[in-house]
Amino acid sequence: MKQDINVYMQELGIKARKASSTLAAVESKTKNDALHAIADKLIANTETLKTENAKDLEAGKAKGLDNAMLDRLALTDASIKQMAEGLRQIAALADPVGEINDLNYMPSGIQVGQMRVPLGVIGIIYESRPNVTADAAALCLKSGNATILRGGSEAIHSNKAVAQCIQDGLKEAGLPSECVQVVEVTDREAVGELLRLKDYVDVIIPRGGKGLIERVSNDSLIPVIKHLDGICHVYIDDDADKEKSLKVTFNSKSQRYGTCNTLETLLVAKSRASEILPELHSLFVEEGVELRGCEQTQQIIDCSPASEEDWQTEYLAPILAIKVVADLDEAIQHINTYSSQHTESIITQDITKTRRFMREVDSASVMVNASTRFADGFEYGLGAEIGISTDKLHARGPVGLIGLTSLKYVVFGDGHIRQ
Amino acid sequence: MKQDINVYMQELGIKARKASSTLAAVESKTKNDALHAIADKLIANTETLKTENAKDLEAGKAKGLDNAMLDRLALTDASIKQMAEGLRQIAALADPVGEINDLNYMPSGIQVGQMRVPLGVIGIIYESRPNVTADAAALCLKSGNATILRGGSEAIHSNKAVAQCIQDGLKEAGLPSECVQVVEVTDREAVGELLRLKDYVDVIIPRGGKGLIERVSNDSLIPVIKHLDGICHVYIDDDADKEKSLKVTFNSKSQRYGTCNTLETLLVAKSRASEILPELHSLFVEEGVELRGCEQTQQIIDCSPASEEDWQTEYLAPILAIKVVADLDEAIQHINTYSSQHTESIITQDITKTRRFMREVDSASVMVNASTRFADGFEYGLGAEIGISTDKLHARGPVGLIGLTSLKYVVFGDGHIRQ
Repeated sequence: MKQDINVYMQELGIKARKASSTLAAVESKTKNDALHAIADKLIANTETLKTENAKDLEAGKAKGLDNAMLDRLALTDASIKQMAEGLRQIAALADPVGEINDLNYMPSGIQVGQMRVPLGVIGIIYESRPNVTADAAALCLKSGNATILRGGSEAIHSNKAVAQCIQDGLKEAGLPSECVQVVEVTDREAVGELLRLKDYVDVIIPRGGKGLIERVSNDSLIPVIKHLDGICHVYIDDDADKEKSLKVTFNSKSQRYGTCNTLETLLVAKSRASEILPELHSLFVEEGVELRGCEQTQQIIDCSPASEEDWQTEYLAPILAIKVVADLDEAIQHINTYSSQHTESIITQDITKTRRFMREVDSASVMVNASTRFADGFEYGLGAEIGISTDKLHARGPVGLIGLTSLKYVVFGDGHIRQ
Repeated sequence: MKQDINVYMQELGIKARKASSTLAAVESKTKNDALHAIADKLIANTETLKTENAKDLEAGKAKGLDNAMLDRLALTDASIKQMAEGLRQIAALADPVGEINDLNYMPSGIQVGQMRVPLGVIGIIYESRPNVTADAAALCLKSGNATILRGGSEAIHSNKAVAQCIQDGLKEAGLPSECVQVVEVTDREAVGELLRLKDYVDVIIPRGGKGLIERVSNDSLIPVIKHLDGICHVYIDDDADKEKSLKVTFNSKSQRYGTCNTLETLLVAKSRASEILPELHSLFVEEGVELRGCEQTQQIIDCSPASEEDWQTEYLAPILAIKVVADLDEAIQHINTYSSQHTESIITQDITKTRRFMREVDSASVMVNASTRFADGFEYGLGAEIGISTDKLHARGPVGLIGLTSLKYVVFGDGHIRQ
């Protein structure tokens, strides 16, 4: 059986590599036609998608999946429409492939520039959200990459049904169906094989919980674009505007609790703590947010004590850790020690401290006077995102179409030789 | 002992991480001052450098190192002067750190841009060339990265002497000496430890032969920027200009034999083979280059037969493999099958075929009517290079200062919150 899975995955890899050559060279119109055709197929096959999805939901219930998981697994008329709409939005984005930057003449007489090209073959490993199948495939397709998709086994019927729509759409646009392949083996060993296909797969993108991402990064022989935690900070500086402080802090924590760009630890300059913390306390208590403070915080407001562990925790829940700091130096030091390098924001009116915070905080997104909740591909104008990277190499922060491409050098000469 | 090395390497990592925070925020002038100070120290300590180098040379001779290796190991007045000159050239380059690209207003009212930032800590693993110590340290320093350098044990005295100059120079400019650290343990286990320091080192760059690079990539838990082979191709198209074909092919192969951008396999369109191959034959025979041809080539010129293995070989020697192909399609297919994705050049006057070659050949450098020998950081205007990457992620082709940096998002608001 293990041997069969090995052969099966190798074949997917070989086919994907072959399809990627075709896909790298096709014109934008063909890719956009395919995206629209896939969207049409999804709408036209709404009933089939729901029937197949019902099988997964039933099995999921029998298996005892909790309501949140069943919710993410469910396909409805509305979610199918949304999937189709997402594909049309990606079709409307500019195609980054083939663009040549900075074509310059060199002293030797040759012209040198860089052309944006697809990465090649992308492996996506995700949990039981069938909409990721369409969404990830579309971003990879638009950026000229072939994709191998491996979704959670709980969504296998739904994923296969979505995959059928994708393949019909590709065919209608005249593209090889191997541009997007769904792994149909639910055995966990298939993931292991995918992570070892380094001759055929150029990058792995895991999407899901921390457990999945850690497992994938540890086992992969292929480079991984990933995001682990989102331990995001807001720092209210001595020179912060009070209204902006309250507004941005409240929004960063409360606009949504379960997202990676949600505020988890608030830092407040000592000089402003007794003025601002009581007002924040009222706002958050009314909202039902539990506050955990350092000793100085506890002297100002009524809250539970924060321990060392709190500074290291991504709550993903209505809980906020608060620490009073002496100044910007201590704030930056705390952030660069405990942050997961996702997103941090300073609230200040002072330009010098803004400059320092922007330069010295080593995170994927660094903000001034703005909610951490803005750290998102749509809000950054990328049109869509395949994920948010907390790595430094290749892509950092929200990853859109550009993050799924690379640059190769192009050189134009006229018989030029090196002296 | 193994435990000691572990502790020693961890300490280097912790110190490097700390120094990298300082280095990321200093102004260009400080970094340039340090580079000039290091250059001055190298010149002032020429005699010491030569004395220490003599110890390595003596030990190397005793150990039976061949002449080529001893040659690479040797430091002379001229090579020390050249090292210093290299540092001054890097000081003169523009500093990429802190530059903000494309700062745009979004519909929400926030401004979003990307700031170029150092990667953090870079580990360089190289063989017995002491000049790499200064060169690699300088590129990393200028791009704001702290460095841990691990050179070949045969060059340990030389490397330590160069490192002393570097540290004196850093000190003179007011920078922490931990910005550049040389691993002083010659035990091979130190390399293994370095490759596991993933909390403290952001990227590993191996410089040296294929064996070293393969070992490093296989063992590293840290992302690696590397280049493996250089199996480079020239394709002489139906519509090639004959003079350009001869000139570029001859230069690509013969200008230097041992470099990674040297031509290894020549592809010739069938329609031009009988006209061009005999002239190339005369040129190459006179130069002492051995030709190995496919069957069709053998019918046209006197040469030894090329086997499947020849298409997969980087000779790094005066040997050239030649294959006659039907057309551009076959040429691209051969290249995308056998190339190491380093550098390929088409010789043609036809714009349509140029467009196809540029788009469809999947290599780090793709050229038209230019010698493959141009694939080089200096020739591309990067000012200097730390190596040539045949990877696709992050950096592809010659890697200069930009390749040693990353982009983080910066967001400017004025109390903006997400709706």
